[in-house]
Amino acid sequence: MFVLVNLKAYPCNPIEVATAAADVADDSGVRVAVAPQAANLAAVAGTGVETWAQHVSPNEHGSHTGSTLAEAVAESGAEGTMLNHSENRLKLADIDASLDAADRVGLETIVCANNPAQTGAVAALGPDAVAVEPPELIGTGTPVSKADPDVVTGAVDAAARVDGDVDVLCGAGISTGEDIVSASDLGATGVLLASGVAKADDPRAALEDLVEPLR
Amino acid sequence: MFVLVNLKAYPCNPIEVATAAADVADDSGVRVAVAPQAANLAAVAGTGVETWAQHVSPNEHGSHTGSTLAEAVAESGAEGTMLNHSENRLKLADIDASLDAADRVGLETIVCANNPAQTGAVAALGPDAVAVEPPELIGTGTPVSKADPDVVTGAVDAAARVDGDVDVLCGAGISTGEDIVSASDLGATGVLLASGVAKADDPRAALEDLVEPLR
Amino acid sequence: MFVLVNLKAYPCNPIEVATAAADVADDSGVRVAVAPQAANLAAVAGTGVETWAQHVSPNEHGSHTGSTLAEAVAESGAEGTMLNHSENRLKLADIDASLDAADRVGLETIVCANNPAQTGAVAALGPDAVAVEPPELIGTGTPVSKADPDVVTGAVDAAARVDGDVDVLCGAGISTGEDIVSASDLGATGVLLASGVAKADDPRAALEDLVEPLR
Amino acid sequence: MFVLVNLKAYPCNPIEVATAAADVADDSGVRVAVAPQAANLAAVAGTGVETWAQHVSPNEHGSHTGSTLAEAVAESGAEGTMLNHSENRLKLADIDASLDAADRVGLETIVCANNPAQTGAVAALGPDAVAVEPPELIGTGTPVSKADPDVVTGAVDAAARVDGDVDVLCGAGISTGEDIVSASDLGATGVLLASGVAKADDPRAALEDLVEPLR
Repeated sequence: MFVLVNLKAYPCNPIEVATAAADVADDSGVRVAVAPQAANLAAVAGTGVETWAQHVSPNEHGSHTGSTLAEAVAESGAEGTMLNHSENRLKLADIDASLDAADRVGLETIVCANNPAQTGAVAALGPDAVAVEPPELIGTGTPVSKADPDVVTGAVDAAARVDGDVDVLCGAGISTGEDIVSASDLGATGVLLASGVAKADDPRAALEDLVEPLR
Repeated sequence: MFVLVNLKAYPCNPIEVATAAADVADDSGVRVAVAPQAANLAAVAGTGVETWAQHVSPNEHGSHTGSTLAEAVAESGAEGTMLNHSENRLKLADIDASLDAADRVGLETIVCANNPAQTGAVAALGPDAVAVEPPELIGTGTPVSKADPDVVTGAVDAAARVDGDVDVLCGAGISTGEDIVSASDLGATGVLLASGVAKADDPRAALEDLVEPLR
Repeated sequence: MFVLVNLKAYPCNPIEVATAAADVADDSGVRVAVAPQAANLAAVAGTGVETWAQHVSPNEHGSHTGSTLAEAVAESGAEGTMLNHSENRLKLADIDASLDAADRVGLETIVCANNPAQTGAVAALGPDAVAVEPPELIGTGTPVSKADPDVVTGAVDAAARVDGDVDVLCGAGISTGEDIVSASDLGATGVLLASGVAKADDPRAALEDLVEPLR
Repeated sequence: MFVLVNLKAYPCNPIEVATAAADVADDSGVRVAVAPQAANLAAVAGTGVETWAQHVSPNEHGSHTGSTLAEAVAESGAEGTMLNHSENRLKLADIDASLDAADRVGLETIVCANNPAQTGAVAALGPDAVAVEPPELIGTGTPVSKADPDVVTGAVDAAARVDGDVDVLCGAGISTGEDIVSASDLGATGVLLASGVAKADDPRAALEDLVEPLR
């Protein structure tokens, strides 16, 4: 299982979370990555943790003020990028172009989707993985694997029908190791989580609890 | 073959084009529809021509100033709606929600896509059809069926792999009856066209020429 | 005082509200207008009521699928257009261009703004009026003139400092004639309202109550 | 005069340009700053050059995946931020909120505008400065101060009428020291430039030439 911690724009210390994540990944052997804001990518990558961007722009080098180019993200030390998070929804054509941008520089890709139908749609664009996150569960602490397991199995099926090489991750409401095990049981190969770690009083302890059942 | 004439925001007389389209459809037996701006839907539908919207909003009834609700479009007499034209690209989640909105009121749906990969993606959302239109050919007078026939066959294959019930139309650069026949030969079940009719000196004559090989 | 009833995407019968508004305007001598969705403009204008659009696109005639051109709006019988409602916020450059579009065809313009600073900003673009509507009060039934009268007087002052010819209207939470009188006392020359009329069981009675103190 | 070099998403080495800019600023006594992509802010600030962001998001700390928070920008060492560049146009309400975000952390602000009317509009929101850049001149090498000097003086007048504390900078087509002197003569207190330095074979030489008349 892959555990990707999205720091969003939370008032956490990204270096503290990244250092904890790097240590927990080393200790447990579980793959754990951290996705900070673009401005913090290099500092987070400097801790040695696997680093992901929260977004890359669909464009190439050129006159694009305010962009976050895949090239700049990769040069900052990131190994992957999320795309189309429900807080940052993209046009279909831009998901396609941002996936091309990520491919150009070798970034791994996870595209978010709200439901099984969108999971199938995204899978047709050839990302490495799709993360299914019903928007109404994000930040609730109720995991989709419990609230609506059919969404996860439906997403796994939808992706498989379109492209058997596309993994499905599970997001929204994940906060315990048990939630991760449930997600795995439903066919997900990883989880996206955010507040459960980034807003925890002790992010290291939160991560240790999370990966405990996966050791 | 289905011939859908997109009036865009051209300075044409929508009633004149609609009347011509209704007559040509009657005379030839070819299915011809016209897609005017939202403000002109009722007037165009009043001519008896099959009428399509250029877009419907993803939302339901409620506090959404500036929306074009599927309900209002259907009540104006439209029978279908285009979505995600390259001049009006939508977020993936909004294509999904606009398709739901169209289904709610029984509007037929055609979603535009730039290439075969996006055609497959859109097909996964369950529209009635996808129109593949490479943006670089729109308005050029060079039909995609001639400039890049692999895009059309690739789109037909991509849609079929995802959902065999989803038709593929062909847009961008269609201006003659021969172009429509080529599109049909490549597996398309219809064409999207715009300036070739809407900006013609004599829209009726342009339409008659277009459908001639289909009679 | 000018009373502009925004029908948003409410499930009301636009013709019924428009007919009531036309009658109440005639009976009371108060200026009352109705702003329906674009698809309903012609039908609403056909009742004889003063008709406004909820939005016009910033562009001119051309290849702009999904646009609502100022020309199409004016030809449908509308006399004015709202712009930049908080449910349909526009880029600064597009407010500027949509105002140019409205001017091109003689549409009167009201641009919405959240606060006094934005009211001053909009006034610098030369609309006929600015409607100040704190987003947090929209749909609450608590009028800005009561909840936060300083917002209204601040907006009136901000507009006057920039361009003395720009009127200020007051929106958000207006539902009674008393609210309109308060708005007038604070320097507003009109009100924007929506649910108080459009979602009323008896829109005509609601409008009669509203204009009663203005007769 | 303030010289702000916008690196956009150009394929330049941001550290090389930043080091050159720091040296030229030191040698000449002219204020020179560099605005890299968000991912490069910390590295650029590390050279000692005055560093600006190309954009900051309108939101505060919270669940906002893909944002570039003013806080993260300031912590990376930036001293200011551009907003609303013609390649990254913002909604009016978001310009207002992004200015609040910048104020929150003490970032200096320059908001771009296309013409004198928009310059006045932006000035009403209280930024430190407005940069007037007619979009049709960006990247042309023809300076606005020569092609259309009335735009610059019109912008200076428009800002002064609204808020005498708001400076006006001049962008679009600036590439020589003479262009900067012309801009100064027209009332601008600085210039925005991009390709003239960022795409120069020798950015240091380009900067030295630019500031020569200002020494």
